[in-house]
Amino acid sequence: MGKDVEEVGEQREMRGKDYEDPPPAPLIDPVELTKWSLYRAVIAEFIATLLFLYVTVLTIIGNSSQTSGTAADAACGGVGVLGIAWAFGGMIFILVYCTAGISGGHINPAVTFGLFLGRKVSLIRAVLYILAQMAGAICGAGLAKAFQKSYYDRYGGGANFVQDGYSTGTALGAEIIGTFVLVYTVFSATDPKRSARDSHVPVLAPLPIGFAVFMVHLATIPVTGTGINPARSFGAAVIYNKDKIWDDHWIFWVGPAIGAAVAAIYHQHILRATAIKALGSFRSNA
Amino acid sequence: MGKDVEEVGEQREMRGKDYEDPPPAPLIDPVELTKWSLYRAVIAEFIATLLFLYVTVLTIIGNSSQTSGTAADAACGGVGVLGIAWAFGGMIFILVYCTAGISGGHINPAVTFGLFLGRKVSLIRAVLYILAQMAGAICGAGLAKAFQKSYYDRYGGGANFVQDGYSTGTALGAEIIGTFVLVYTVFSATDPKRSARDSHVPVLAPLPIGFAVFMVHLATIPVTGTGINPARSFGAAVIYNKDKIWDDHWIFWVGPAIGAAVAAIYHQHILRATAIKALGSFRSNA
Amino acid sequence: MGKDVEEVGEQREMRGKDYEDPPPAPLIDPVELTKWSLYRAVIAEFIATLLFLYVTVLTIIGNSSQTSGTAADAACGGVGVLGIAWAFGGMIFILVYCTAGISGGHINPAVTFGLFLGRKVSLIRAVLYILAQMAGAICGAGLAKAFQKSYYDRYGGGANFVQDGYSTGTALGAEIIGTFVLVYTVFSATDPKRSARDSHVPVLAPLPIGFAVFMVHLATIPVTGTGINPARSFGAAVIYNKDKIWDDHWIFWVGPAIGAAVAAIYHQHILRATAIKALGSFRSNA
Amino acid sequence: MGKDVEEVGEQREMRGKDYEDPPPAPLIDPVELTKWSLYRAVIAEFIATLLFLYVTVLTIIGNSSQTSGTAADAACGGVGVLGIAWAFGGMIFILVYCTAGISGGHINPAVTFGLFLGRKVSLIRAVLYILAQMAGAICGAGLAKAFQKSYYDRYGGGANFVQDGYSTGTALGAEIIGTFVLVYTVFSATDPKRSARDSHVPVLAPLPIGFAVFMVHLATIPVTGTGINPARSFGAAVIYNKDKIWDDHWIFWVGPAIGAAVAAIYHQHILRATAIKALGSFRSNA
Repeated sequence: MGKDVEEVGEQREMRGKDYEDPPPAPLIDPVELTKWSLYRAVIAEFIATLLFLYVTVLTIIGNSSQTSGTAADAACGGVGVLGIAWAFGGMIFILVYCTAGISGGHINPAVTFGLFLGRKVSLIRAVLYILAQMAGAICGAGLAKAFQKSYYDRYGGGANFVQDGYSTGTALGAEIIGTFVLVYTVFSATDPKRSARDSHVPVLAPLPIGFAVFMVHLATIPVTGTGINPARSFGAAVIYNKDKIWDDHWIFWVGPAIGAAVAAIYHQHILRATAIKALGSFRSNA
Repeated sequence: MGKDVEEVGEQREMRGKDYEDPPPAPLIDPVELTKWSLYRAVIAEFIATLLFLYVTVLTIIGNSSQTSGTAADAACGGVGVLGIAWAFGGMIFILVYCTAGISGGHINPAVTFGLFLGRKVSLIRAVLYILAQMAGAICGAGLAKAFQKSYYDRYGGGANFVQDGYSTGTALGAEIIGTFVLVYTVFSATDPKRSARDSHVPVLAPLPIGFAVFMVHLATIPVTGTGINPARSFGAAVIYNKDKIWDDHWIFWVGPAIGAAVAAIYHQHILRATAIKALGSFRSNA
Repeated sequence: MGKDVEEVGEQREMRGKDYEDPPPAPLIDPVELTKWSLYRAVIAEFIATLLFLYVTVLTIIGNSSQTSGTAADAACGGVGVLGIAWAFGGMIFILVYCTAGISGGHINPAVTFGLFLGRKVSLIRAVLYILAQMAGAICGAGLAKAFQKSYYDRYGGGANFVQDGYSTGTALGAEIIGTFVLVYTVFSATDPKRSARDSHVPVLAPLPIGFAVFMVHLATIPVTGTGINPARSFGAAVIYNKDKIWDDHWIFWVGPAIGAAVAAIYHQHILRATAIKALGSFRSNA
Repeated sequence: MGKDVEEVGEQREMRGKDYEDPPPAPLIDPVELTKWSLYRAVIAEFIATLLFLYVTVLTIIGNSSQTSGTAADAACGGVGVLGIAWAFGGMIFILVYCTAGISGGHINPAVTFGLFLGRKVSLIRAVLYILAQMAGAICGAGLAKAFQKSYYDRYGGGANFVQDGYSTGTALGAEIIGTFVLVYTVFSATDPKRSARDSHVPVLAPLPIGFAVFMVHLATIPVTGTGINPARSFGAAVIYNKDKIWDDHWIFWVGPAIGAAVAAIYHQHILRATAIKALGSFRSNA
């Protein structure tokens, strides 16, 4: 808020930095594999993604089962599309809150991939996280199906697909921009430079990350149901597994991967200006 | 957010801990009984649970009375299922905010039970809290009935029961997982290790706890109306007291108890790794 | 959250307090009248209450005008009762946020009355605030009417009255308990003892106060439209001024006054235990 | 909250200020033009406004496409007007959160204009920001149109215009007051005096700014669709570009400009009392 904050930052930067960027994470760090904290983090990602799919798929199916009566006064019997968007955003809020100190609170392969590109997690950790997220998503969607047998198939199992009237290109674009919004927010929330200067950055962090997910769902549920999380799309597809659900499935991996990569580049090279600083072209040596 | 936080934590841990786990609460502490702070806390739990049931049951009945007209344009006359979910989550947010410093802000026997298993409250305190919560819930539901005489019975009194189309097992499972989400969030929010490292943990605490309740209601209102709080289910059942409401009532005690116990075990033995640390199997002595 | 917080507090209290209760505000302080800060605060209360009524009444009328078509698909054309409840709660959130440091952020004669009973504002300040709030509410409701001429009268002008099917006693009770929820939250948020110990108390403060208003609206819009703020009820009634709107108007002053007084007593004498401490009956002299 | 805060502030002020108002920003500062931080900020404003229009216009069109079926049970198929209001408010919340430390998080020419009047940004910066916001808004609305070809025109392209039944004067008034609410909140959130005294001011800041946008949309979507952001109105109008959309377009520049100017005057001259202090009329020299 306000240029003053930034200006003061500029001056402080000249006197010496008030923050420390951690060194880039190594690609492969064998010592990491001997620590309980890694396995604990993998378990936390598994459980968090399981809970994420369980609550969100159950909300989607439960809403459909309640709003599909023929009577007009049943029309508002469910939580609505707004409630579904809240379920996705709200779960990410509480799960990031709960797991931030354990695993970093990714709960999403696109987030893990973006932070890997930003050299904030090692390759080993990234691979283990993504496997745990995929396994957790399958279990969570499976639980939701077990609890909602009668309605699960009838309402599409909460799986992502390109809705009627939208092209593959539109769906891919929606996934790219949606994931960009999310991963850009994650990078902003975890930037040590900003955390050191604006007290709202570290304190609120899980809330805007959850809201980013909420916002993207408001915008793109009509287009693809909104993926922006390959584990979520994959888990729901594995359990649903019919109606050509796999035909478009690549969109929900390629789109988020591109969106996360663009967000990583935007944050590291434009906003944090590492490229510019290396060239030394703009900044005077005071 | 971010592995850096955790890594830094690892290093600090080797130099000496920057936080202190309080000693386990004794089972029975006679001195506690002589302190006004205990009785004040019991009164605060009573009032908070009363207000919780009053607002939420009134919201449920008020919504039903407004949406059950036959005209289509009355269909959205109430706050909707989404509004009901907000009432439960929002009340827990403000009541935890208001009573955290007085009683710890439980307002739920499952939370008290989970924190007792985690040795964070004494047995005496746990028993007194649960009695106060049950009494408060009865009074709150009674007030709501008194204010909504004409609609209370017609709309089921806000009581929890297994909805048509769902089995007892599904209902029990939904209660277990729902309570797990809530109590896991409570443990994360009250962990001294995390509070010392992540500023968002102590500052936001009441908000994700409220959101956890909101989320679970979005997912399982169609299944059981959502209990995850035995005092809430008990108070509403005592006041409603008809239509075989007691037949399934055990689900709303057994489910939350199991969910809370699993959350306590998950947090203490997996995430905080007390078992692993005792074995000394993973961590090197630097 | 958690008993540990409180226990640590107990111990600190024995060593010497880590907080300071400000001295009770004088009833009449002539020096206060010479300070610009008093008049600035009165202006801020006037503007804030004006904006509060403007936004909320406009939301009520706008919602009605959009949802009253006869076509079924117009049924969800407005923001709904949930949106109206958000308008009240959200406006209190932002107005308390903006005016807390200027006037204390009351925007409600019941809050001013409660804080006066708790000796946190002087009599002179309380009277000036209440007059400013009433004037602001009239102006805000007047603006809303001017902007919504065609629909304003048809939809009751956003005024509070006892809805069909509810007795005067129920309406009075609903106002008392609703105001209790709000003023209890305000006292919790402004307690120096809690602020010193729980970081969430001072930082989040405007948010749970706004949520308290949101919650009470969810519960009691079907009963009275929800007052819990005599200035809001008064301003809307002055501008609407028909249909026997004044017959029940006393409820919206007496109810909030009782609710605020009970909350002040509960907070000061039970939770902060001033009465008990004076008697010295429970606390041992360590 | 509470007068104590303010009173303590009064005393501190007499002993010496605990905060520092930054010097007024120069109108034109050539050195600023040599810094990468300016261009980075302009890019951040461009991207943020692009994302703002993309998500919000997509939400508006997507909601309309889902709720316009003829069957009654399709009535609640979209996110509703409430969901649209959330999209605007929530996006501002996350975008202010993400860009506050980079550009100050304006994302709105009215905010830039208000902060320029308050001498918080230079003229050069203000002009560059506004151009970036306008360009970003056009691109964002264009993307939304590209993704929603079939429905975009049919549902008015998310453009702002004076709705049937409202006069030009009403629309202008609604834009003035709505922008006042927003810019007043921005000034409150970025005031160094308040930040130094109330911990909630700097920490929560992006949240009430987002809520201010949410609130104004609840109130005035039925009147004009709600502008309060000339870039948002301009971008949507450029892409829609039909149906006399330009006839009323001046309202969405003149209204926000007046509202922002009044908010700047209210904050600087009434609440911060610079005029009064200069006259020395009220404050005694203790």
